[in-house]
Formats: sequence, C-alpha cells, structure tokens
Amino acid sequence: MGCIVEADDGDDVVMEPPANFSMVDEGIYRSSCPRPANFSFIETLNLRSIIYLCPEPYPEENMEFIRSHNITLFQFGIEGKTEPSVSTLKDAIRGALKILIDVRNHPVLIHCKRGKHRTGSLVGCLRKLQNWCLSSVYEEYQHFAGIKSRPTDMRFIETFDVVCLRQCLHSLIFQYQGYGSKKRRLLYKEENVQKSRIASV
Amino acid sequence: MGCIVEADDGDDVVMEPPANFSMVDEGIYRSSCPRPANFSFIETLNLRSIIYLCPEPYPEENMEFIRSHNITLFQFGIEGKTEPSVSTLKDAIRGALKILIDVRNHPVLIHCKRGKHRTGSLVGCLRKLQNWCLSSVYEEYQHFAGIKSRPTDMRFIETFDVVCLRQCLHSLIFQYQGYGSKKRRLLYKEENVQKSRIASV
Repeated sequence: MGCIVEADDGDDVVMEPPANFSMVDEGIYRSSCPRPANFSFIETLNLRSIIYLCPEPYPEENMEFIRSHNITLFQFGIEGKTEPSVSTLKDAIRGALKILIDVRNHPVLIHCKRGKHRTGSLVGCLRKLQNWCLSSVYEEYQHFAGIKSRPTDMRFIETFDVVCLRQCLHSLIFQYQGYGSKKRRLLYKEENVQKSRIASV
Repeated sequence: MGCIVEADDGDDVVMEPPANFSMVDEGIYRSSCPRPANFSFIETLNLRSIIYLCPEPYPEENMEFIRSHNITLFQFGIEGKTEPSVSTLKDAIRGALKILIDVRNHPVLIHCKRGKHRTGSLVGCLRKLQNWCLSSVYEEYQHFAGIKSRPTDMRFIETFDVVCLRQCLHSLIFQYQGYGSKKRRLLYKEENVQKSRIASV
C-alpha cells in the first residue's frame, strides 16, 4: 500500500507508474526506463537502489533524480539490439542477481529500456532461484514481453545455472533474511533492529 | 523474497504459482483460482486472508487448505458469465476494497476464476484509490486480461467513485498504516509492536 499519498493541500496527486511497471516481490520492482513524468510515482517506492541493465549512460534527468533521492545505481550493461554472447549475458545476470537478492539493497527497481527482454531475463533467473517451475517463469516473462517474447531469452533462462549461485548466496541470505524454517525468526529480528534505528532518528 | 525455500533434506522444491499470479503491492497478491498443485507455492505467501470474487461455493480442496492454514475467506460473489448490474458490481467491489486495504487482513490474495476480469476490476479500483493515472490502470488491467479485455470492465473502473471511499477509509489507514507525511513513522511503530510480539512467542 505504498502508493496512497495525499498532497499537503489535501488534493490527491495523480501518479503515472512507468510502462510495464510491476512488483516482483517484497522490496523488488520492475519497469521500463522511468521518464520524468513517472518520478512522483517512483518517489513513493522509497527506493534504496536501481539495477540498470543497459550499456548506455544513465539518462541525465534520471541521474539527477537518483542523486537527490540518495538511490544507488548498479549498472550491468547488456546490449539490447544485437544479441550479447551467452557468457557476457551470464556474467551480467549473475552480477545483477547478487545485488538483487541482497536485502540491504532493497527496495530496488530493475529496469532496462522497455522492461521486456533484459529485465525479463533477470526476473526469470530470480524466479528459478526462487524455485518457480519453468512454465510459470515463462508465463511471467511472456506476460511482460508480449508479442516481443524472444526464444533466445527463454532458452537463456532455462539453461541458467542457479545451483552454484544459490550456494554462494545462501550465507548472505541466511545472515540478512534467513531462509527455510529459520526465515521468519531472523527476518523479524533484523527488522526490529532497523526499525528502531529509524524510529529514533 | 518470500519464496526461497529449502526442503529439510536439502533438495529444492519446485513450485508452481497459480496462472496469472502477481504481487499487486506489499502484502497484496492476485491470481487465478489456485489448484492443489499451487498450494505449496501459496504456502510461502503466509496469507492471512483470501478475497474470492466468484458466487460459486469455494472449492472443497481450497477450503481444506485455508482451514489448515488459518486463512480467512472473504467472498464477494460477482457473476462471471452474465454481466452483473453496475450497482451490484459497485457494492461488491466497494466491500472487497474495504477488506483489501485493511492491513490487518494482509498478506491477502485476491482471486476469481481466471484472474482477469473480476480480479482486474478490483485491482483497477485499488489503483485509482492509489492515485494511479487511468492509462496506467488500463495498462495493468489489459496486461492480465490480454485479448479477453472487456470495455465494460474498463468503463466500470473509470466511473468507479473512489472519493467517498477514500474519506471513509482514511481513518482506518491512518490508524493502522499512516499515510502522507506520517506514513513511515506510524508504519514503523506499528511494525515494532507486531514484530516484538511475534519475536517473543
């Protein structure tokens, strides 16, 4: 319910989320590249970081926005027009995933240009890490890519190996969020610490 | 990150979210009607309630699932095949919205049969309450309804009056979650109370 806002004068501000916007999971959002018209909406997400998947420099207006809101930018440049080599793509997605699942970076927004292929591939790999069955991963990918769905992306997601990544990451998740039967206990403890710190500011 | 689970024997459980599943906002999910194959996934959401938008009795297997997981069912029967009268629909959506935005009912899953029209109409009205501009509300509706998008649903969403509802609900949101400039402070306080309670169990 992070988006119910009220202007100081009592009038409600109409907000425009970026195209292809959606919540992926707690503290994780996805979209196309936000335009200035979307900034008032993006503000309501209270982002701590952005994962940007294009090789182009971050647009100047967006750069100003994230500077003034203390948002950290993580850039993993993946070519959009020509197909990147699988090993380049694998490295970028693996790097992005490590940032993505580290809750210290949350809330985080993932975006490329249109929020279809690069963003869809990253979210697809995250879903594999979350143990979603492949048909559900594909359904979600196609949901956002629509008629632009690319079989190469889907093959990439299918063959992406999460086992190695999962092992490397378990210690991190465990420390900061907990998983399995210990998930809730650790999560609550951690949240208590964070929340009291903020409340006492 | 609520879905990273690990089986006790170390093997990862492959999970199948229901078709048309998505996170709407913090603590709010949407989907088609979950089938037993989806129950292990639904478990990871730790639902407190379900908003069911069909007039048919809740399927027996689903009823057993929610009973064993202490999930409260809120049913607002909206006809799926014949078009319900606007006033019937308005009453159902208004009732469902009141349940939906009350964080005491979160995490909550909204579903009808296929997660397209009835669920899409409810989420569309929620987005209006969240001050989303109409074109973004439509984009999201069409995202899930696809080629089955119904102009009558979109007209309903457009004409649905959230001003009255917003006034009625402000006191509730304010009390339980806060809004505007007071949102975070109250949210943190409330969470602290809840979390300490859970942590001490």
